[in-house]
Amino acid sequence: MDGDGSVRPGSLRQAMTDAVFPGGGRLRPRLVLAVAEGLGDPNPALSLAGAVAVELIHCSSLAHDDLPCFDDAPLRRGEPSVHAKHGEAIAVLVGDGLIVRAFEVVAIAGESDPRAALAITRELSRATGGFEGLVAGQAWEFEPNAVWSDYHDAKTGALFAAAAAIGAIAAGGDPENYRALGGRIGGAYQLADDLADRYGQPEDLGKAVGLDDRKGVPSAPSALGVDGTLQRLQALQRETKSWLREMKANEQLESLVLETLERLLPKQFRAR
Amino acid sequence: MDGDGSVRPGSLRQAMTDAVFPGGGRLRPRLVLAVAEGLGDPNPALSLAGAVAVELIHCSSLAHDDLPCFDDAPLRRGEPSVHAKHGEAIAVLVGDGLIVRAFEVVAIAGESDPRAALAITRELSRATGGFEGLVAGQAWEFEPNAVWSDYHDAKTGALFAAAAAIGAIAAGGDPENYRALGGRIGGAYQLADDLADRYGQPEDLGKAVGLDDRKGVPSAPSALGVDGTLQRLQALQRETKSWLREMKANEQLESLVLETLERLLPKQFRAR
Repeated sequence: MDGDGSVRPGSLRQAMTDAVFPGGGRLRPRLVLAVAEGLGDPNPALSLAGAVAVELIHCSSLAHDDLPCFDDAPLRRGEPSVHAKHGEAIAVLVGDGLIVRAFEVVAIAGESDPRAALAITRELSRATGGFEGLVAGQAWEFEPNAVWSDYHDAKTGALFAAAAAIGAIAAGGDPENYRALGGRIGGAYQLADDLADRYGQPEDLGKAVGLDDRKGVPSAPSALGVDGTLQRLQALQRETKSWLREMKANEQLESLVLETLERLLPKQFRAR
Repeated sequence: MDGDGSVRPGSLRQAMTDAVFPGGGRLRPRLVLAVAEGLGDPNPALSLAGAVAVELIHCSSLAHDDLPCFDDAPLRRGEPSVHAKHGEAIAVLVGDGLIVRAFEVVAIAGESDPRAALAITRELSRATGGFEGLVAGQAWEFEPNAVWSDYHDAKTGALFAAAAAIGAIAAGGDPENYRALGGRIGGAYQLADDLADRYGQPEDLGKAVGLDDRKGVPSAPSALGVDGTLQRLQALQRETKSWLREMKANEQLESLVLETLERLLPKQFRAR
C-alpha cells in the first residue's frame, strides 16, 4: 500500500477495475444465483463467490479477447478496451490477475464448505482451462478446419454450463441437470450472437459487427445458413423451456433464461 | 478428442506442452517437495499437486513475460519462446490455461484433505494475483518510480515464499516460518539474477543479458551498486543458513537452498 492507502501498482489496479466495471448483462453470475436460489441457497456466501468467480473469468476473457493479437477491439461496452486505455502488457496482466482472483474468492468463501468449494473450483477450471473450455474456444479461432459447434461449445457453452452447475453445487444440489441446462442456454446465446454479428446493428449491440467473417472464425450462419441457424436456435429454446417446466423452475430462473435467450437476437428475427 | 485420440485444439495442446517442457531448474516445485518431505509428507499426492501448481504458474508467467509487449524474447532455455513458435494469441492462451490448470490440479488432489487444498489455493492465489504477487510484479515494470525491492518481492519473492509455505501446508505444518524462508531464498535468487543480467555471460545463462537496463526496470545494482547488492545477497544467505540450522532442516532442503542461492550468481562473484 502507498502512504495514502491506495493499492499499488496503481495502473494494474485501475485496469482491473476497468475490466470488471461497468459490466454487461452479468448473465452468467445471475444464472449461478438463480439456480442456487431455486434450490434454497443454504450457503449464500458460497453461491455469491461462485457467481463472482464466473464473472471474473468472463471479464478476463474479454480483456484478452480484445487484444490486438485477437479481435483488436478499441471499444468494449462503449468504453476504451483495457489494452486501448492501459496498454497491451497491462491488459495481459489484468486477464491473468482476474483468473487468479476467480479461484481466490471461491477458496476464501469455501471455508464453510471446503468440499463444495473444491467441486466449484473443478467445475470452473474444466470450463475455463480444459480442452473443451473457454481458453480452448479462443484457440479454435486459429485452427484450420474448426467446426462451429465445437467452437461455440468451448467458447460460450462451457462457462454457461459451469455457471448453472456451480449454482447447484453451492446449494448442495446435483449439478448434472443444471450443467445441461446451462450448456443449452449458452448454445442459444452464441447462435443469437452469430446472427447479431452478421445481421445486427452496431448501435443496438454496442459493439462492432461483421467480425466473424472478417476473422474467418467458424460461425453457425456460415455453416447452416440463416434458416438453419434459426431452426437450431428455436430447437434449443424449446428444449430449454420444456426443461424449465419439468424442473418446476422458479420465476427468477425462468425470466433470466428467457431474457438471455432473447438478448442478442436481432430485432428482425424476434417475430419469426 | 479427434478420431485418432489426440486432444484438440492441437496448436494449444502443443504450445502448452512446449511452455512446460523442457523445464529449467524446477527450483520452486523442488522447494515445495523438500519442505513437505522435511515434515514427513503424510499426503504426497497433495504436496505433489502443490509443486506442480507452483511450477505451472511459473511457466505461465514465462510465456507471458516473453511476449512482445513485455520482454519480446525470441528464445527461452535455448528454444523458441512460445509466441515465437506459436504466435502471440496462442501464447496468451497458454499462459491463461496454465494458470487455470494450476488451480485445477490442487482441487483434484485436494479431495483427500479439502481444508489443506483450500489453504494451498489461497496461498497460491495471493502469491500470483494479489497486489504483492507475481502479476503485480510484472506490472511494476510499467510504473514510474518503482522501487527495486517491491519489484523483487512481488515478481520473485512471493512465489518462492508460497512454494515453501505450500510444502508446509500440504504436510500439515505451520506455513509461517517457511513462508519467510521462501521469501529470503527468492530475494537472494533475484539479487543474483540482477547481477547475472548485468555482469553474466549469455552462454553461461542460456538467455540474453542487459535486459534490465534496456527496459529500464528497477534493479538492485542500479540502486545499491554492485557492492551493495553483494552485501545484501550475503546477508540473505547468512540469514537463510542460520534458519536452516535453527529449524534442523533435512539435507534435501539444505542442498536445494544452497544450490538455489548459487545458481545464477556470475562466476566472478562466487569467490568473494
